[in-house]
Amino acid sequence: MKIALLAGDGIGPEIMAEARRVLDALSLPGLVLFEGDVGGAAYKRHGHPLPEETLEMARASDAVLFGAVGDPACDNLERHLRPEQAVLGLRSALGLFANLRPATMFAGLEDMSALRPEIAREIDVLIVRELNGDVYFGEKGMRTTPDGVREGYDIMSYNEDEVRRIAHVAFRAAQGRKKRLCSVDKANVLETSQLWRDVVVETAAEYPDVTLSHMYVDNAAMQMVRNPGQFDVMVTGNLFGDILSDQASMCVGSIGLLASAALGERQTEFGTFGMYEPIHGSAPDIAGQGTANPSAMILSLAMLLRHSLGREDDAAVIEAAVAKTLDDGILGADLGGSAGTRAIGDAVLGRLK
Amino acid sequence: MKIALLAGDGIGPEIMAEARRVLDALSLPGLVLFEGDVGGAAYKRHGHPLPEETLEMARASDAVLFGAVGDPACDNLERHLRPEQAVLGLRSALGLFANLRPATMFAGLEDMSALRPEIAREIDVLIVRELNGDVYFGEKGMRTTPDGVREGYDIMSYNEDEVRRIAHVAFRAAQGRKKRLCSVDKANVLETSQLWRDVVVETAAEYPDVTLSHMYVDNAAMQMVRNPGQFDVMVTGNLFGDILSDQASMCVGSIGLLASAALGERQTEFGTFGMYEPIHGSAPDIAGQGTANPSAMILSLAMLLRHSLGREDDAAVIEAAVAKTLDDGILGADLGGSAGTRAIGDAVLGRLK
Ligand SMILES: CC(C)[C@H](C(=O)O)[C@@H](O)C(=O)O
Ligand SMILES: CC(C)[C@H](C(=O)O)[C@@H](O)C(=O)O
Repeated sequence: MKIALLAGDGIGPEIMAEARRVLDALSLPGLVLFEGDVGGAAYKRHGHPLPEETLEMARASDAVLFGAVGDPACDNLERHLRPEQAVLGLRSALGLFANLRPATMFAGLEDMSALRPEIAREIDVLIVRELNGDVYFGEKGMRTTPDGVREGYDIMSYNEDEVRRIAHVAFRAAQGRKKRLCSVDKANVLETSQLWRDVVVETAAEYPDVTLSHMYVDNAAMQMVRNPGQFDVMVTGNLFGDILSDQASMCVGSIGLLASAALGERQTEFGTFGMYEPIHGSAPDIAGQGTANPSAMILSLAMLLRHSLGREDDAAVIEAAVAKTLDDGILGADLGGSAGTRAIGDAVLGRLK
Repeated sequence: MKIALLAGDGIGPEIMAEARRVLDALSLPGLVLFEGDVGGAAYKRHGHPLPEETLEMARASDAVLFGAVGDPACDNLERHLRPEQAVLGLRSALGLFANLRPATMFAGLEDMSALRPEIAREIDVLIVRELNGDVYFGEKGMRTTPDGVREGYDIMSYNEDEVRRIAHVAFRAAQGRKKRLCSVDKANVLETSQLWRDVVVETAAEYPDVTLSHMYVDNAAMQMVRNPGQFDVMVTGNLFGDILSDQASMCVGSIGLLASAALGERQTEFGTFGMYEPIHGSAPDIAGQGTANPSAMILSLAMLLRHSLGREDDAAVIEAAVAKTLDDGILGADLGGSAGTRAIGDAVLGRLK
């Protein structure tokens, strides 16, 4: 079993250190860990946010555990050299097409949400976001028309194979949950969305036990505020998924607790190759202070164990330890508590069993 | 002064009737009213949701007051014949490029929001959405690749003239408010957004009194939940504006009270040509029952008087009457009250002064 650890920028290294302690405590047989540079840290050392050796390391692994990237010192670099581009580069180069973003209310934390507690309490949604296509990866450019007017353009598109493979992921996820899938698009305006909808409907025939519905993205953004508890699994394209999944995370209120997975098609010896990272960013303002909450990073490790290494038991043990830590009132500054990065790591370690 | 009244589908005609009573009560000198078919109603009568005569009527007017379109009976029509296409057709044919969507908390209605009252209370944002460009109106289509794979595509683009004119509208609006403008884009991924950002920054030089900031759309969707009170004016493209403005409306909680304007470049004798409509839809489920809240429709009329007819005083009188009606506890079913369409119309009429 090989895992590539890419800590990245800001609070990335501190929270990665705690996830690593948890990983060490599991004493997985035959585990090999690699460590690579990514983001602003990689730019400083290698002149590129995603060095070739980091990519090779990821390719040679069964899974990638990713911290966070983003560094204000890189704000004025050309776009392709900025830290965030490493994320896009990894997703694309590794074929990570399926982004799983669960947003679930943690018991007792209803008051952290900006939503009213009785609404927030009901949130338990898994957003399945397509991650390799859409307007993110279509042809794009800047041009000047013959009469000297600058114009920017980006081609949005999906083909049926791309939609079908993400639809399968979403339907299967729904089968393991409450068997409801809501597909989000803008089919009243976009042809890309019309194809999306057609293919999702076709795919549904293979999952008669799942109830499929469709929602326009503007309505979905409203419903996510009005009554997020109505959703079980949502599936959507790269751009709408970017917006809706961040919105959903914020509705939960404790973004320092939310993890995500980006899965590819490659099957490893133990599961599906994937990259795992917290939803939150690199938080440069609090980096190096030992106050960052490592929970989302540790929960990302749990997702990695589940999906890429086939170790459901270990994943469940870690998730239970994080929940118990919260239950015991050991809260980070992000949740109004005073426990630091290391203290939360210690607390989780002490509750693994 | 000529106003085209396009009531449309569902509750459109009932709420339009109340707005019309308010308009009649103002006894505007030389006012001429036209009435036209639009949406599903127009399709049934003329075979098209936006008949040529309706478009001509709109063109011959100083402003359009628009009810709502959308009719489940039309769900299986080809896309270009569906009721909502009338809205896109009017925006495009009339050059309505600037969508103003104010979302403001009404005093005493904090409990209607899904957000916690102390957060909801602070909402007072004007979203300025570009309405004539973006991926909405770029080339789009469905094609099959040589190896038989279906693909849908839509071209997203903006040119500098399109961005500049909407930026001017937004900066001017900010000058009349708290002088803060937040431009929303996805410049870390899209060239269209990079151009958008560049041109907004250039335009800012003409408005030194306005503080400009930029936010990525995913972050904006989070901030709109976390702390919507931070926003004064927001400016964004057609697609992001569709999503964020609906989200903002829902954060306010009383969507039956929110109005919108879509302004063009054409100046009439009295102001700027525009089309005005409630944010809410045609609500076919409650159509014909006399229970729909006509407030958003009446407030749309107020916006019409302000922007297209230069009658700020009349606009203010109407807005005060609606606020007073709410204050007096005369609430529609959407706000947990029992006042019907006509009763709310009566209440507003009785408070005009
Ligand atoms: C950093 C950025 C390019 C990225 C995205 O838009 O996908 C981020 O917002 C995310 O959701 O992981
Ligand atoms: C009906 C639809 C085409 C329209 C849009 O997407 O612009 C609507 O959602 C709106 O915001 O007015």
